[in-house]
Amino acid sequence: MQALFQIATQGPGLYEFTDRAQTWVAGLDRQNGLLTLFVQHTSCSLLIQENADPEVQADLQAFFHRLVPPSTDPSMHYLRHTYEGPDDMPAHIKAAMMPVSLSLPVHQGRILLGTWQGIYLFEHRTASHQRNVVAHLT
Amino acid sequence: MQALFQIATQGPGLYEFTDRAQTWVAGLDRQNGLLTLFVQHTSCSLLIQENADPEVQADLQAFFHRLVPPSTDPSMHYLRHTYEGPDDMPAHIKAAMMPVSLSLPVHQGRILLGTWQGIYLFEHRTASHQRNVVAHLT
Amino acid sequence: MQALFQIATQGPGLYEFTDRAQTWVAGLDRQNGLLTLFVQHTSCSLLIQENADPEVQADLQAFFHRLVPPSTDPSMHYLRHTYEGPDDMPAHIKAAMMPVSLSLPVHQGRILLGTWQGIYLFEHRTASHQRNVVAHLT
Repeated sequence: MQALFQIATQGPGLYEFTDRAQTWVAGLDRQNGLLTLFVQHTSCSLLIQENADPEVQADLQAFFHRLVPPSTDPSMHYLRHTYEGPDDMPAHIKAAMMPVSLSLPVHQGRILLGTWQGIYLFEHRTASHQRNVVAHLT
Repeated sequence: MQALFQIATQGPGLYEFTDRAQTWVAGLDRQNGLLTLFVQHTSCSLLIQENADPEVQADLQAFFHRLVPPSTDPSMHYLRHTYEGPDDMPAHIKAAMMPVSLSLPVHQGRILLGTWQGIYLFEHRTASHQRNVVAHLT
Repeated sequence: MQALFQIATQGPGLYEFTDRAQTWVAGLDRQNGLLTLFVQHTSCSLLIQENADPEVQADLQAFFHRLVPPSTDPSMHYLRHTYEGPDDMPAHIKAAMMPVSLSLPVHQGRILLGTWQGIYLFEHRTASHQRNVVAHLT
């Protein structure tokens, strides 16, 4: 079973879609299975992260912005792929450091997330984007 | 087929559980399949790493401790999620940079690991924890 | 269904094998499925990355070389696993930060990659190597 989740993003940050994924899985009426999520882009990521305190998400974004600053930052002077904007190559780097696919066991129609786990798309680009996540249940 | 591995951790570091995973897979008497491991927490990671020289594990921990120091370190002054301890937000950041799920092919009842590969839980928190890893074999 | 892709590398950089993976999947004549790729080493990685501009690949390599320099660099003085060469422990660190396994949905015999996505082995070692990637289709 496969589905496509479209997620509209408005700038950098984490966008949760746990409920959409869980609702889709529950509707398939399978007992056990494996849910795989795959994002069809190279400038955003998929994350499992804490869903309790929104400051965790702000801190994650702040850390990776400092670790991989825009290509206009003097420390990034060596980057050559800069013509798509100062946030483009850093977005590719972040997309290499964080997952593009996640595999999550399903039991009795429920994704086996831990108590504090949510499923997020992590947008790395500044402009608004429409992002495609393919869901596959075996 | 699903199972839960509980792993007790006593502070930061790599905890190997290759044998437990391999024993469980062998007992299922499947020829071919795909083993997925998923950790139900957002402050530890799953790693495939070298199992020959323990210094590799010490060096890994040292590198990530320097890359993402405790929130009491002046370089981390911008973090806001600090009330769960100076090691908490760095643990979430490390959990974003390293895998929460691993997918490993199985052939004739054996996980197809390379010669020097072991399966580890990488604990990022200072206090002792009981960690849950869900195993799923298709 | 399982297969082994052998990839010969000559020094650090990204080696694309999208076509080999796609050709193998197409030849199996399955409609839908999940392709998992797993690399049997701890000093290289698997990446989904942009396949349009080769400068993206050069920039990725440059960034990670600066983030994790050779163990002869003064900033890496604390590393202890150095007897396999100055590029060995940094390779293990990069292999912890980037994927060892990728899970990719397949539809009508095609891997559901986005328009600009290619599948790469990211070699972190300086010497030439023969790398094994196990492919598994469910």
